[in-house]
Amino acid sequence: MAGERVQPATLSRSEAALVASEGKAPRTERGRKTLRAILDAAAIEFGEKGFHEGSISGITRRAGVALGSFYTYFDSKDAVFRALVRDMSDQVRDHVAPAIRAAPDQIAAERAGLSEFIAFVRGHKEIYRIIDEAEFVDPESFRLHYATTADRIAARLKAGAARGEIRADISDVHAWAIMGMNVFLGLRYGVWQDDVSPEAVADSIAEMLARGIGTK
Amino acid sequence: MAGERVQPATLSRSEAALVASEGKAPRTERGRKTLRAILDAAAIEFGEKGFHEGSISGITRRAGVALGSFYTYFDSKDAVFRALVRDMSDQVRDHVAPAIRAAPDQIAAERAGLSEFIAFVRGHKEIYRIIDEAEFVDPESFRLHYATTADRIAARLKAGAARGEIRADISDVHAWAIMGMNVFLGLRYGVWQDDVSPEAVADSIAEMLARGIGTK
Repeated sequence: MAGERVQPATLSRSEAALVASEGKAPRTERGRKTLRAILDAAAIEFGEKGFHEGSISGITRRAGVALGSFYTYFDSKDAVFRALVRDMSDQVRDHVAPAIRAAPDQIAAERAGLSEFIAFVRGHKEIYRIIDEAEFVDPESFRLHYATTADRIAARLKAGAARGEIRADISDVHAWAIMGMNVFLGLRYGVWQDDVSPEAVADSIAEMLARGIGTK
Repeated sequence: MAGERVQPATLSRSEAALVASEGKAPRTERGRKTLRAILDAAAIEFGEKGFHEGSISGITRRAGVALGSFYTYFDSKDAVFRALVRDMSDQVRDHVAPAIRAAPDQIAAERAGLSEFIAFVRGHKEIYRIIDEAEFVDPESFRLHYATTADRIAARLKAGAARGEIRADISDVHAWAIMGMNVFLGLRYGVWQDDVSPEAVADSIAEMLARGIGTK
């Protein structure tokens, strides 16, 4: 799962300030690497065991850091879980963003976003279990993840409408619909089975969207 | 939540045989009513408290039945939870089925199904929490719920294609996409907020689908 990551991330200074507990943001590059290692270990720990069975000592063991280092950045198991949900939400956004930006038009952007999302999920299967468990462990993070994702989709669809690439009657309803499609297509073709390529799934959906909400 | 139900259900003989623990299906109409009362009480208990905090005694108290009656039909808390997921999945299917069958064509059927689903969710907000918690408590039921729902959608889309109402290139990818849309539109416009009517949400989506996968 997390061990399959092809692009080990490091946190920028501003990201590290946001995910660590209040007043505990790392101030050095080394500190940011330790924080990144703790978050990656937490993804494996909670992904495999779930929140209730997962433990801080399991996280520090997997990360290869001392227990004290954990408390340098986080106040509690709840705090690292909350940070992890935020971090995974940001990782998905950052992973799909370049492909979306590089696309020649908004339908192509939706196609690229879905294809990249399914590919990302195949390498990070724990993401579903963690975000879904947030509904129970940390409902505010769960709600925030989906509300901000839907807002982001709505904003890019409306920008596409302003450029004449998307129908003018586009609304938040379409943004929630596209988010829902993407989540379930990621579950089916990313986590559960890989019998259809991410590109083929995205092609089918992009054709439907081109006719359904496109203007060409 | 469950108290807002407008159509209190009773179980048919075959349904009651399927949800009760093995060898424990009720044989009388009175027994089926008791089983129904236990399932409705379990929906409230697990919907409010979650699986881990919910208890058999909480269920029997809410249902107004003796503890012995619970064990007449179920072996354990796990068993009643599993039965509840199955029951809620069946309730959704049975609630939306008449509107889908009555629709004049397949796009109208998808519109009616979504509208009825959002309306149903508004009166049964606990359904999301229970089915989502199944991912952790009873992963097999979780998977079965979505796999059978997607299969049902795929079957009706393919029947629509055979009648010439849906494009011939319809596939399971579209079925999973439509299920995902419906789940997230139900969450946003059924559970979280009711600022847009179920009919208006369904109209937007039906217009998109008519152009996207329809033939007219």
